[in-house]
Amino acid sequence: MMEIEASAIELLARVRQKAPLIHNITNFVVMNSSANILLAIGASPVMAHCQAEVEEMTSMSSALVLNIGTIQEDWLDSMICAAKTANSVGIPVILDPVGAGATRLRTDAINEIMGKASISVLRGNCSEVLSLGSSGIKTKGVDTSLSLSDQTVEAARQMAVDKKCVIAISGEEDCITDGHQVFRVRNGQPLMTRVTGSGCGLTAVTAAFCAVAENSLALATAAAFGYYGLCGDLAVKTSDKPGSFHVAFIDQLYSTGDEEIREHLKIKEVC
Amino acid sequence: MMEIEASAIELLARVRQKAPLIHNITNFVVMNSSANILLAIGASPVMAHCQAEVEEMTSMSSALVLNIGTIQEDWLDSMICAAKTANSVGIPVILDPVGAGATRLRTDAINEIMGKASISVLRGNCSEVLSLGSSGIKTKGVDTSLSLSDQTVEAARQMAVDKKCVIAISGEEDCITDGHQVFRVRNGQPLMTRVTGSGCGLTAVTAAFCAVAENSLALATAAAFGYYGLCGDLAVKTSDKPGSFHVAFIDQLYSTGDEEIREHLKIKEVC
Amino acid sequence: MMEIEASAIELLARVRQKAPLIHNITNFVVMNSSANILLAIGASPVMAHCQAEVEEMTSMSSALVLNIGTIQEDWLDSMICAAKTANSVGIPVILDPVGAGATRLRTDAINEIMGKASISVLRGNCSEVLSLGSSGIKTKGVDTSLSLSDQTVEAARQMAVDKKCVIAISGEEDCITDGHQVFRVRNGQPLMTRVTGSGCGLTAVTAAFCAVAENSLALATAAAFGYYGLCGDLAVKTSDKPGSFHVAFIDQLYSTGDEEIREHLKIKEVC
Repeated sequence: MMEIEASAIELLARVRQKAPLIHNITNFVVMNSSANILLAIGASPVMAHCQAEVEEMTSMSSALVLNIGTIQEDWLDSMICAAKTANSVGIPVILDPVGAGATRLRTDAINEIMGKASISVLRGNCSEVLSLGSSGIKTKGVDTSLSLSDQTVEAARQMAVDKKCVIAISGEEDCITDGHQVFRVRNGQPLMTRVTGSGCGLTAVTAAFCAVAENSLALATAAAFGYYGLCGDLAVKTSDKPGSFHVAFIDQLYSTGDEEIREHLKIKEVC
Repeated sequence: MMEIEASAIELLARVRQKAPLIHNITNFVVMNSSANILLAIGASPVMAHCQAEVEEMTSMSSALVLNIGTIQEDWLDSMICAAKTANSVGIPVILDPVGAGATRLRTDAINEIMGKASISVLRGNCSEVLSLGSSGIKTKGVDTSLSLSDQTVEAARQMAVDKKCVIAISGEEDCITDGHQVFRVRNGQPLMTRVTGSGCGLTAVTAAFCAVAENSLALATAAAFGYYGLCGDLAVKTSDKPGSFHVAFIDQLYSTGDEEIREHLKIKEVC
Repeated sequence: MMEIEASAIELLARVRQKAPLIHNITNFVVMNSSANILLAIGASPVMAHCQAEVEEMTSMSSALVLNIGTIQEDWLDSMICAAKTANSVGIPVILDPVGAGATRLRTDAINEIMGKASISVLRGNCSEVLSLGSSGIKTKGVDTSLSLSDQTVEAARQMAVDKKCVIAISGEEDCITDGHQVFRVRNGQPLMTRVTGSGCGLTAVTAAFCAVAENSLALATAAAFGYYGLCGDLAVKTSDKPGSFHVAFIDQLYSTGDEEIREHLKIKEVC
């Protein structure tokens, strides 16, 4: 347990010290909020989607975020190009399957990306992620109401093995697994679902933690989830309404330190 | 009078309970703020503009928002496709003619959409809306300085009859009419015009109210205008400066309840 | 010195009184924040990028902002078209070379724009701007770490002469020059770099000040830099964390007045 907290503290310190460049090819809704979230934790965001520059941009970055929230065909091409570049230069690729399962375009987009490049972490809510496995659950837009059962955890673990990546499912309780390690995270607040881009922001923060990770990406992802949720836990003490909560949340991402992590991180390795 | 307030309370309760999925094909400037506004009132926003998925996305939604604020040709095609789908599945279409009258592209876009599909509510400021009728007023970007005269109300009423939709004009005083009923709404604050996307957010909220309406869309639109303006009236008590006002406004959209509606809603049916 | 402050006060008063329409063709990340920043100072923003309408939109505007932050080929065509229109109707063009030097696409885009149209002000950070001159510095995304040396000032001055425009470099200390006049500005806070779009917002504010300037655009640019930085100086007294700082900053852009300008503006003409 103490080890997880020490890792989270170490990873956050490295993000703040190294300011890793995170290349985002993401949706129009959250570009601004994801950039602010990355800046708040100390990372350097860059958004670039034009195929003519993604290779160059990815090559100088420390992690790549792909998010299909407002996908269109030419952006998908750029994502695949960027992902292949990321693979060749050896930086992590974090994929957010926004709305997968809701439309064929989105499900196909994720399958095409994962078929053509190696993904390090797949980060979504339960219905999005599981719709990409064998269970084929139908999602309603970007929401989820599935809770984290043992079956879900097992499905995630199996999927991590099959797809050779970290599977990271957000929900009331989060589940992160690379097929071997499984982490459960209990930080975070329901109010975060009332602020757009909360999930996408977590994907970006996961990329920043993975960018500076030296070994287990599952652990780095769990640390990112725990830290992000913890900042929500602290922000809700300032406000329980979404406008002022979001402002307080950005402030917490910037200022939350070692002591809060040591005392309030709720990450458990379960197997 | 009491009837209008009861309707507003009932519609808001239904939005919060049903969390209707609102499909937005809207402009780049307000995607984030419209999503947050919809989440704050309890609705579920989804943004999707790619022609390959709009049919599927609209089909699973409870209302469609079309907003031409940063229109380009392929997006217009998607809007028309989505509007036709909305017509066929029987959900309301709320159209925001941002900048109509300012450029030919925008005026033509609105006329093309309205020529090819049925629109439920046309929501804009006075100059935008009236530029689409016979009066042909020239607008300056997205602003308006026209006030709500009896002539304007009569022009709106006639336009509602001609175009077979609810005409909803925002201004210092708002006017909503389906050609038969006419509502005037006096809630709202001038400061809202100093926050980008205030009008577009109102269009989105109108869609959420219409999504759960059982009969008159004119009444549902008036209720949306009243509630939205009322939240502005309450937020300005927290701050009279645009940055903190906007935060307080989102908080109010989330928390304003029956009692405030009963006491402070300023909607009048005038004929 | 008193003259500079009087000019800043006069220009701000004119922006607030005339509400000049500022046409922005800018990046997806900052469209919302740039619009809010322009509204806060009293200007009227419009975002429009479709080639079918940029001529019309630029023709009715008082200044044009071009920002290549998330550039793609068709947007570049629109920018060139808009810039030519701006030249023909005689309004200032403010160009923000986001990420110039980082990728070939961006460097080429700026060179193409500047080759085909006259630019009034080139506003960026040190590495972006100098990468476009003879020194060829390589930038890391949108960040800079270069400080304002005498060599930098001289390079900027020479560049202003070569390119026949105002060169405006943001940093801990800013440098604005048209090749003849050189201004140094010491307002502004490091925390501004932790809020996305701070630089792009400054470009927009520069456009608003230039839109109402009667003579020296270098002076108008320096006044914009000073006012913008001053609002940051005042906002940091409200909060030293990025979420609430940004809210306070928007409030300051709206409310900061003559007295604060007279007392706290830190602009020096150095030659």
